[in-house]
Amino acid sequence: MSALPPSFVPQDDLGTLCLGLAQRAKAAARALATVATAAKNQWLLAAADALEAHQDELLAANARDVAAAPGFGLNAAAIDRLTLNPKRIKAAAEGLRQVTALPDPVGEVREATQRPNGLQILKVGVPLGVVFFIYESRPNVTADAAALCVKSGNAVILRGGKEAIHSNTVLHRLLSAELARCGLPADAVQLVPTTDRQAVGHLLAMSEFIDLAIPRGGKSLIQRVASEARMPVIKHFDGVCHVFVDAAADLKVAERIVVNAKCQRPGTCNAAECLLVHAAVADEFLPVVGASLVAKGVELRGCEQTRRRLPGAKHAADDDYRTEYLDLILSIKVVADLDEAVRHIETFGSHHTDAIVTRDINSARLFTQRVDSAAVMVNASTRFNDGFELGLGAEIGISTDRFHARGPCGLRELTTYKFIVTGDGHVRE
Amino acid sequence: MSALPPSFVPQDDLGTLCLGLAQRAKAAARALATVATAAKNQWLLAAADALEAHQDELLAANARDVAAAPGFGLNAAAIDRLTLNPKRIKAAAEGLRQVTALPDPVGEVREATQRPNGLQILKVGVPLGVVFFIYESRPNVTADAAALCVKSGNAVILRGGKEAIHSNTVLHRLLSAELARCGLPADAVQLVPTTDRQAVGHLLAMSEFIDLAIPRGGKSLIQRVASEARMPVIKHFDGVCHVFVDAAADLKVAERIVVNAKCQRPGTCNAAECLLVHAAVADEFLPVVGASLVAKGVELRGCEQTRRRLPGAKHAADDDYRTEYLDLILSIKVVADLDEAVRHIETFGSHHTDAIVTRDINSARLFTQRVDSAAVMVNASTRFNDGFELGLGAEIGISTDRFHARGPCGLRELTTYKFIVTGDGHVRE
Repeated sequence: MSALPPSFVPQDDLGTLCLGLAQRAKAAARALATVATAAKNQWLLAAADALEAHQDELLAANARDVAAAPGFGLNAAAIDRLTLNPKRIKAAAEGLRQVTALPDPVGEVREATQRPNGLQILKVGVPLGVVFFIYESRPNVTADAAALCVKSGNAVILRGGKEAIHSNTVLHRLLSAELARCGLPADAVQLVPTTDRQAVGHLLAMSEFIDLAIPRGGKSLIQRVASEARMPVIKHFDGVCHVFVDAAADLKVAERIVVNAKCQRPGTCNAAECLLVHAAVADEFLPVVGASLVAKGVELRGCEQTRRRLPGAKHAADDDYRTEYLDLILSIKVVADLDEAVRHIETFGSHHTDAIVTRDINSARLFTQRVDSAAVMVNASTRFNDGFELGLGAEIGISTDRFHARGPCGLRELTTYKFIVTGDGHVRE
Repeated sequence: MSALPPSFVPQDDLGTLCLGLAQRAKAAARALATVATAAKNQWLLAAADALEAHQDELLAANARDVAAAPGFGLNAAAIDRLTLNPKRIKAAAEGLRQVTALPDPVGEVREATQRPNGLQILKVGVPLGVVFFIYESRPNVTADAAALCVKSGNAVILRGGKEAIHSNTVLHRLLSAELARCGLPADAVQLVPTTDRQAVGHLLAMSEFIDLAIPRGGKSLIQRVASEARMPVIKHFDGVCHVFVDAAADLKVAERIVVNAKCQRPGTCNAAECLLVHAAVADEFLPVVGASLVAKGVELRGCEQTRRRLPGAKHAADDDYRTEYLDLILSIKVVADLDEAVRHIETFGSHHTDAIVTRDINSARLFTQRVDSAAVMVNASTRFNDGFELGLGAEIGISTDRFHARGPCGLRELTTYKFIVTGDGHVRE
């Protein structure tokens, strides 16, 4: 029994529908929590096969979404993300198969101790319960999210964008049918069967059935979920990421890292948005890196000291330093020392990913201790802050929160734990 | 930069005061985050000495609180908890000294891997930041909470009950003065300097400065904090704890555990509230355990099958099975098998602490897998679900949530982590 009063009382048909979804999810989660790893892996493989076997049906449903997309105001890039083709369906199936290789976080013994009185204490991974996953247009995310939730023993309620409703309906039907065929609870993967936005609000109120909400999409979606949810939320906000080129940097390495961090995929949260250059190397480094960046099409915006060395750079205002461009734009600042670099990052950054390039072991030590970001890189591109690159396997999101999970969230971040305490008649005195 | 808009704009003097507290706490937390363990331990020892050295001043302040207590409607037990004496001051000082022996969770390397590309990945403990701790009358909690927060690198804003304001004011002054004397930020421990209840609401809105709220007290306090807080909350709700006596139980062991779980400290959250007895041993066990419990002054309330074996037991309604008595009352139910025991616990329990007594390894395995509680005990009293007993050291609370921390919260539960990624010029292809 929760000591909080029931959070939601349905007032209409939509409320009743949502309550049914949530209650079925809770029951499915209870059953799924103790399912063996092998059974979950069997479902992942069966689901992958089903996606490939039903390719034509998926493509037909997706074609309806794509045809309707201009009516929803989607631009060409968004329509491309929405579009399925045989290659993308195969990739989604492969994604499911790869999750079989990840260790099951459920039942995992995370700590084991024996107390002086002989009690054995195990701390063991268990699922969180029910995950409400709210996301935008890419339909392959549907299969990814279902795979990660089920493998970690959680039931998931999927709420995709209205743009992808036909694709998601078929995907959900296939995933759920294979659950039943594998002897797992079919309701472990459910799709909100309406595009009514009110359904999201209803579900966000049901904290006695839903244990976690994960919004994945634009800032306004995340803000709405964070403000309405009565359960924990894993939020994914800005990545205002920095590369600091120290006085003791290998400037060839620095150039390679800055160009990679900015240009390899500028639209991602772990792309660099700001370059900080130690004054001692600014004369030598800025013209070289500036030329490389401009050659890649990057627009540069710098402080006065930067513009003295790079006359082509525009003026950077304070707001530039706070901006996640997600584009081929880089702000640049020359700093007096590592202290000023750290202060700049703390003031203007978003605690996401920040890198130092240096050969000085003490600079690396100070920077990694003092920069309070989810990932701090030494002589490596900011682009490595990613679940796969950090060794977590696939990720369901990147948390910009500090509580529970920070940075990439993989299977283990979808779980909690319990203590299993074994004695032989132990009582407290 | 948080992507959420600032959460609080002061409208009056109280708001300005609260905002100042929160901003100073944030600055102190930033400085404290990188302080060496030795310096934090030095403060703990100095603070312990200061409490003992200023015993008379503490007792005088506490006498004012005690004198005012009847006016706040405190009963004799509450006044006893509020009262300091030399022995209790010494115990508080000893509590501070004991925290020096606990491992520092900050800087602790929790995972270390090397990726195939040679990147080294460390997952390292870091403080959460600022903790807002809201608690009721016992003044020794002030020293405990400050010690745990500072040792884990967090700044704390303390909000004690109005009944203890004079005691807490002196305690806070001593703790903070020793911080300054040890070269640590004095604002790492602050006390809300007013008993105005609105101050709590103001602070609960300041999610850009405060990282965690911990209410410790009655259910209405926790519900208020949970509903108003814009930051994560560690909640501590009911413990409706069970002991299930299996068909294969050693009945002597079972008797000892049931009596201990119910009677050793009936007012605690990990005391047993309900006894479940396998039908196969009900005839033999119930009369024996019933007599022992009645001899300890326990009132028994049972199902029909229980009352057939224990005619003195009252009738237990469904509401009894949902109740945390916190008193010498025990509900009892005879169950057909382990399945029914697990179903009963899932239906009526609170996922806090549940025990099985059995010699059957498969019963133990099924019970520990299927009962989804923060702590599941095998042949041990429920009373062992406690930070000290489980080996976490002191605890700041026991979480009934699933997210971030479950069960006892010690130093590590007051931290988060960051990834430190080291390469030698690594870029992503």
